[in-house]
Amino acid sequence: MEKRGILLVVSGFSGAGKGTLMKELLRRYENYALSVSATTRKPREGEEEGREYFFKTREEFEQMIAEGQLIEYACYVGNYYGTPKAYVEQQLEQGQDVILEIEIQGARKVKERFPDTVLLFVSPPGAEELKRRLTKRGTESPEVIENRLKRAVEEAEGIEDYDYFVINDDLEACAEHVHQIVRCEHSRTLRCGELLHDIREELKAFSK
Amino acid sequence: MEKRGILLVVSGFSGAGKGTLMKELLRRYENYALSVSATTRKPREGEEEGREYFFKTREEFEQMIAEGQLIEYACYVGNYYGTPKAYVEQQLEQGQDVILEIEIQGARKVKERFPDTVLLFVSPPGAEELKRRLTKRGTESPEVIENRLKRAVEEAEGIEDYDYFVINDDLEACAEHVHQIVRCEHSRTLRCGELLHDIREELKAFSK
Repeated sequence: MEKRGILLVVSGFSGAGKGTLMKELLRRYENYALSVSATTRKPREGEEEGREYFFKTREEFEQMIAEGQLIEYACYVGNYYGTPKAYVEQQLEQGQDVILEIEIQGARKVKERFPDTVLLFVSPPGAEELKRRLTKRGTESPEVIENRLKRAVEEAEGIEDYDYFVINDDLEACAEHVHQIVRCEHSRTLRCGELLHDIREELKAFSK
Repeated sequence: MEKRGILLVVSGFSGAGKGTLMKELLRRYENYALSVSATTRKPREGEEEGREYFFKTREEFEQMIAEGQLIEYACYVGNYYGTPKAYVEQQLEQGQDVILEIEIQGARKVKERFPDTVLLFVSPPGAEELKRRLTKRGTESPEVIENRLKRAVEEAEGIEDYDYFVINDDLEACAEHVHQIVRCEHSRTLRCGELLHDIREELKAFSK
């Protein structure tokens, strides 16, 4: 039997480079699976069903809620976003470490329901760099950037709810560090139940 | 100011290779300092004051207890063993990660007094290998080996009190893994208080 995977929730300031970091993790290591969210938002150009999102009607989504098929869900700007449980469970069972990129409210809900989830918060090296990254994108108005910064202030208040805080300065170094965090989490005694059981049985057999 | 170091308590089955593992950590990485215990036991040949132990008389040791100079202490086979607090504190302040090799009762006491201590348990790959290692030493009688095995059964019952459980199969790989555990522990939000404070202040200044 495969050792059960770890559910890793990743949040971070807008502009912290979470998306690129996740892609780098998936590119470099084989033990990760990215959770795919369900949403009622319309697909944008280039988005593909089952890759970026599972696109659902409002009725379908509300049925998933009613049937307890979602680990967490939330409503943003009139649309539902949520994490289908079945896919995550299946990957964890197979020993894959599953990455879930969600916001702080969702992260808290997941940790409540699944206390052995690892919560990780990603940040640029400082507020100056965060502002630079937000501005460099060039796709957003000053008001949007302003709002994101204000939101970052609020998000920063919740970081203590996370288990780990990592600085995304150098992409490769950060991916390697996050990977090590997951590897080391696998060595937590609370995740070694079966192994400990086996060693105890062996020891008892010998000492008789 | 240096970031405060981590106190790492290492325990493990007799024959798990803790001593060799600690030496390898100290040889490979510069961030570790080994805590030196005080004891009332007589020095053995080749042992040096302040290297293996601080050798104390019973009166001196009991005064250290009375003055609260020890993080933990215990009595084995008529002799006191304990961890002087001053040296550990000084190293942690300087940003060194301090390794403390003690047994399970001591480990529990340290964790109670200093909850942010990291407790690590080291094991050989299995009971068979543990027995082989105990026997290979060739310096102990069958009765001593037998007793150690029985003790291992008891120790195994307490492993869940530790944060991490690592298998010492390959020495270099194990040292690297333990080093990563300490590195990743430095990224725990509970150890990032100052950094989080600074980022919050910066963000607030920007969003005004």
